[in-house]
Amino acid sequence: MKNYKMVLAYDGTRYNGWQKQGNTKNTIQQKLEEALEKLCGAPVDVIGSGRTDAGAHAKGQVANCHMEIAMSPEALLLELNRRLPEDLGVLSVEEAPERFHSRHHAKQKKYLYRIWNSLIHPVFDRKFLFVSEAPLDLLEMQKAAKCLIGTHDFRAFCSNKRYKKSTVRTLFDIQIETCGNEVRILYTGNGFLYNMARILTGTLMEVGEGKRSAGTMPELLAQKDRERAGFTAPAQGLTLEQVLYEK
Amino acid sequence: MKNYKMVLAYDGTRYNGWQKQGNTKNTIQQKLEEALEKLCGAPVDVIGSGRTDAGAHAKGQVANCHMEIAMSPEALLLELNRRLPEDLGVLSVEEAPERFHSRHHAKQKKYLYRIWNSLIHPVFDRKFLFVSEAPLDLLEMQKAAKCLIGTHDFRAFCSNKRYKKSTVRTLFDIQIETCGNEVRILYTGNGFLYNMARILTGTLMEVGEGKRSAGTMPELLAQKDRERAGFTAPAQGLTLEQVLYEK
Repeated sequence: MKNYKMVLAYDGTRYNGWQKQGNTKNTIQQKLEEALEKLCGAPVDVIGSGRTDAGAHAKGQVANCHMEIAMSPEALLLELNRRLPEDLGVLSVEEAPERFHSRHHAKQKKYLYRIWNSLIHPVFDRKFLFVSEAPLDLLEMQKAAKCLIGTHDFRAFCSNKRYKKSTVRTLFDIQIETCGNEVRILYTGNGFLYNMARILTGTLMEVGEGKRSAGTMPELLAQKDRERAGFTAPAQGLTLEQVLYEK
Repeated sequence: MKNYKMVLAYDGTRYNGWQKQGNTKNTIQQKLEEALEKLCGAPVDVIGSGRTDAGAHAKGQVANCHMEIAMSPEALLLELNRRLPEDLGVLSVEEAPERFHSRHHAKQKKYLYRIWNSLIHPVFDRKFLFVSEAPLDLLEMQKAAKCLIGTHDFRAFCSNKRYKKSTVRTLFDIQIETCGNEVRILYTGNGFLYNMARILTGTLMEVGEGKRSAGTMPELLAQKDRERAGFTAPAQGLTLEQVLYEK
């Protein structure tokens, strides 16, 4: 059995997220496993670097799987793309060390949240943006973001109330910038809790709209209360940009 | 009555092109006229710089219309976007001189044709690209393009066989370049015949695939026979990028 590492891109609009579970149909993982099973004639378990939410996108999701297959990684790349739907693409396939695990070994993830801050329709990228008309004060958002960078208990920014494991994560960076009518928030962290990037975004947007002040971020972290953080920004604005591993 | 000039963007995927005519429903022109009629309470005739084909896109279509409306161009811009579907956007509205005519006064148009030259799925831009796997020889395509630049009778590159008016047009430039897995052909001309950009693209692609030689272009122009030119490349790869007017 060889271990294959794959980099994936998907338009998550019509999918129920990454993870197949119970009766959940139409997930990215399921589509990928079906295509791989057809290619190698036996069931294949695909491990993703992490779940992405229903409706969220990826430009650089990483997955791996162990399988026996009589073709080169280059041929596998093409055969997979031939069999996958057009909104799900494999960008690269390579053989990885036997013990490589796309989730356990991930060191950093980058998530981009795109807000379209105008009433003029973003015709071409509309499925990958959250449209919000209210003006945003970027300086205040950047001030708030600074308080969130670092190693903290992010329980207030997690939708799963019954999560038993540690909710401590490290955010290495939050970059907030404008690009025309767009406000882009790029999060770099060692891991993200359920809905974390979206709740961070909702909270930062509320700061930008003047509904809460940047100075309340340390308190919010300390209270560890989901109810006190901001709204969960819609999945369609979120893209998993990159997953980084140690060389 | 004031004359308003508008710049429009649209994802043409689900439209029957620009032009409303007879029973053709779901055209860009029709959507725009409906929105304008609601805003000003009277029928409005919208003049476009030219038709775009069913399924083709625009990033800078220009239109104008004469109407009486009690709001500023800035307000009109926002109200129109509020009323139009999300795949059709108005990028700007301004008052134009009374005699400005978006079609008669257009001096140059730029059309971009995007070819995705790989089997790896172009997930995010897939609706704006034509996927063609065969390798393309860009140097040969550029050689052929050079023969097409200039003032010629482009009858061989026009789908409308019964077209009575002059089929002489000037192509100021054809730029062909790669951008990752994409081959982009940018046409700049003083006007384009029915399907001209798409037949030029089909012909250049056949040159790139070695199915015809660059040297046959002058002959093709001289013969003025549509049957001898290349295939009509699909509308989904085509975008009207810009329409230019004299200052």
